[in-house]
Amino acid sequence: MERLPGFRDFYPEPLPQPGLWSADARHFIFEQWRATARRYGFREYDGPPLEALELFTTKSGEEILGQLYNFTDKGQREVSLRPEMTPTLARMIAAHERSYKKPIKWFALPQLFRYERQQKGRLREHFQFNADILGEGDPGADAELIALLIDTLRSFGLTAEDFVVRLSSRDAWHEFLSEHPGERAAELSFYQIIDKLEREGPESSGPKLAALGLSLEQVNAFIQQAKPTAQLQQILDNLEARGLREYAKVDYGVVRGLAYYTGVVFEAFDRHGEFRAIAGGGRYDNLVKLISHGKVNLPALGFGMGDVVLLELLKARGRLPQFDSSLDAFCLIEDPGLRGASLKLIHDLRGAGLAVDYSLTPAKSDKQFKRAQELNAACALRLDRSPTGEWLVRIKNLKTREEKSVAPAQAAAQVRAFGGHSK
Amino acid sequence: MERLPGFRDFYPEPLPQPGLWSADARHFIFEQWRATARRYGFREYDGPPLEALELFTTKSGEEILGQLYNFTDKGQREVSLRPEMTPTLARMIAAHERSYKKPIKWFALPQLFRYERQQKGRLREHFQFNADILGEGDPGADAELIALLIDTLRSFGLTAEDFVVRLSSRDAWHEFLSEHPGERAAELSFYQIIDKLEREGPESSGPKLAALGLSLEQVNAFIQQAKPTAQLQQILDNLEARGLREYAKVDYGVVRGLAYYTGVVFEAFDRHGEFRAIAGGGRYDNLVKLISHGKVNLPALGFGMGDVVLLELLKARGRLPQFDSSLDAFCLIEDPGLRGASLKLIHDLRGAGLAVDYSLTPAKSDKQFKRAQELNAACALRLDRSPTGEWLVRIKNLKTREEKSVAPAQAAAQVRAFGGHSK
Repeated sequence: MERLPGFRDFYPEPLPQPGLWSADARHFIFEQWRATARRYGFREYDGPPLEALELFTTKSGEEILGQLYNFTDKGQREVSLRPEMTPTLARMIAAHERSYKKPIKWFALPQLFRYERQQKGRLREHFQFNADILGEGDPGADAELIALLIDTLRSFGLTAEDFVVRLSSRDAWHEFLSEHPGERAAELSFYQIIDKLEREGPESSGPKLAALGLSLEQVNAFIQQAKPTAQLQQILDNLEARGLREYAKVDYGVVRGLAYYTGVVFEAFDRHGEFRAIAGGGRYDNLVKLISHGKVNLPALGFGMGDVVLLELLKARGRLPQFDSSLDAFCLIEDPGLRGASLKLIHDLRGAGLAVDYSLTPAKSDKQFKRAQELNAACALRLDRSPTGEWLVRIKNLKTREEKSVAPAQAAAQVRAFGGHSK
Repeated sequence: MERLPGFRDFYPEPLPQPGLWSADARHFIFEQWRATARRYGFREYDGPPLEALELFTTKSGEEILGQLYNFTDKGQREVSLRPEMTPTLARMIAAHERSYKKPIKWFALPQLFRYERQQKGRLREHFQFNADILGEGDPGADAELIALLIDTLRSFGLTAEDFVVRLSSRDAWHEFLSEHPGERAAELSFYQIIDKLEREGPESSGPKLAALGLSLEQVNAFIQQAKPTAQLQQILDNLEARGLREYAKVDYGVVRGLAYYTGVVFEAFDRHGEFRAIAGGGRYDNLVKLISHGKVNLPALGFGMGDVVLLELLKARGRLPQFDSSLDAFCLIEDPGLRGASLKLIHDLRGAGLAVDYSLTPAKSDKQFKRAQELNAACALRLDRSPTGEWLVRIKNLKTREEKSVAPAQAAAQVRAFGGHSK
């Protein structure tokens, strides 16, 4: 039996063959996401992977509507696997807004789903780091969020040579539209044309702009002048104070396709332009009000960073560590009469926080030792008796080949001294 | 807009009102699950939350069939949100069995789904710690897995006063059936009657057993003698060697309702009998063969432990820690002229691994200090100038009220010395 097209299995390393997805790499990415968010004072939340369909259709642009993984459930409800996290966040905040002091700084690591016509290698799910700030309209919040985005990528060892955050503003484009004659009502259609400008090229975008009474020349001239709005300048100054200025630039070619963005928008890209956007986000000051049917009104902004492009980039830049079993010790049980006492030793070492494995059944010494090496354990150890009849643990550092014999009570400390993985 | 019935939102602590689910408690439980599995040498894997329906219908008993969260997708595929993890594991192993050395020790923390007629408070999803050993038929594997189950619960501070693992064996029941006249073909129906014996009582179970040509007296007599099979005795001896004997007992009243179990089965219960089973599992030596259509044949066993009953139990026994923002420091910015330099300080402290927050916009001193206390930050700190014009960081331990002033380069170390949360 096969898994569904567009879905992924995650296997432990070393991977059986190229092209499979690594559970260890996924965990590594999740842990960096969590750790950076926590350093920034963001708190974790989560919602259901399945929501009422209308939660997503109320507020999204057409971009997302054709891609929903929606269906009718057994109770005749119209439901959808979540394509993005922001509507769920807005729903959750609206339900308990008064109980949380502002600004609210929250993050989540949801799995998101979409259903498009299957293209070769195109995934129907991915994981996304979502971080949002609610209840603060000042550009200081935008800067804090963008700094989190930058530091998240830096936490993986990526530098200003590797990526850049392109800052833009719906307000600037709004002003552009008010200064240029055209079809004002079609603002969202216009943003979607700009959003695709780089990917689709002038042949496709030119006529679409013309249909709105605008020209490619006007648009390109506006993008090229790249004069920061007052808000963007505040954000750049704030990033400068933190020492992060080199990671950001103003670029009005970014505009984001979703309907609900209201002010500053941004996307992170690799500097070589090899990959799709690493992350994207912006202000959505009206969304909480919309989702809560006017009950709660909070300025808000957030970003999402997917696991797939990030993983590709980390691989390409050599920023993924080698993953193995992270085993501190493998216990050899050579004498069957020592199995019981060895199980106790193993249990005590695990109780002391070490990762320890052993052969579940009797096996030849060299087979056990080979297994310890295959698992890349830091140490091999075995229980023994001293000449005076006391228990001894003989420990071998599998990297340096150094050996030590210690009393069982000292075994955990000696494994740590030999550089076991666990702290 | 509301979330779907039977699904949960997870909020950061402190929770706005009782009855909400805590994202911090969930994370705490996941981390303990992961840490214990790793100490036992288990490796993490994951599969898709959505699978082809036939993956679950091929091998499950009727118990699960009526409860599937299944639907037809946009491509006219019959699919289902996963009700359990074992079929996905068997599918993944069957696809790459030769690449992994045996025994394979893997774990996962999937979210699982079911769709029953909605009962008050009944959930349609939960998270489950799944641990499995594949490729080892010896009872030493059963003992290793049951020891992991016991140590997982012990890692939460639960003791032998709190829970017990009830061990049983399909083999023993199989022998019982061969010694008692009855309808041999109805073995699964029989197990499902036994599985429900405690919940449904003699009035319901008696007639059902009679229909199979068996009596409640025969069944009760068999359960009460509780004589361990040779395999169960091996497992008990193995647990004894580890010092875990008191956590297990033989109890043939446990039999598990699923069709695919073949040998030893077990369930963990709280000693007071207040809650549903905390965890359950057993051997399923034929499942991998069934899922792989005979291609791969591996003995296997595993257990699942849900987050909901565990959380109820931990709450009832006072074993959940207090959760807060885990903030190491809150930076006060009293002089607007120091905002830029303070942002740099905050950035450096975060870069040193500390969790730091601050007011995103200018605010009165006492309001900032109040916020630091609300967030339960370990320290409050602020940037200042020494009389000789050098930068100083004034740090206050918010628990002891102790204060120290240090150079910016020493600030992270001083916050740690004051007992910040981050190590």
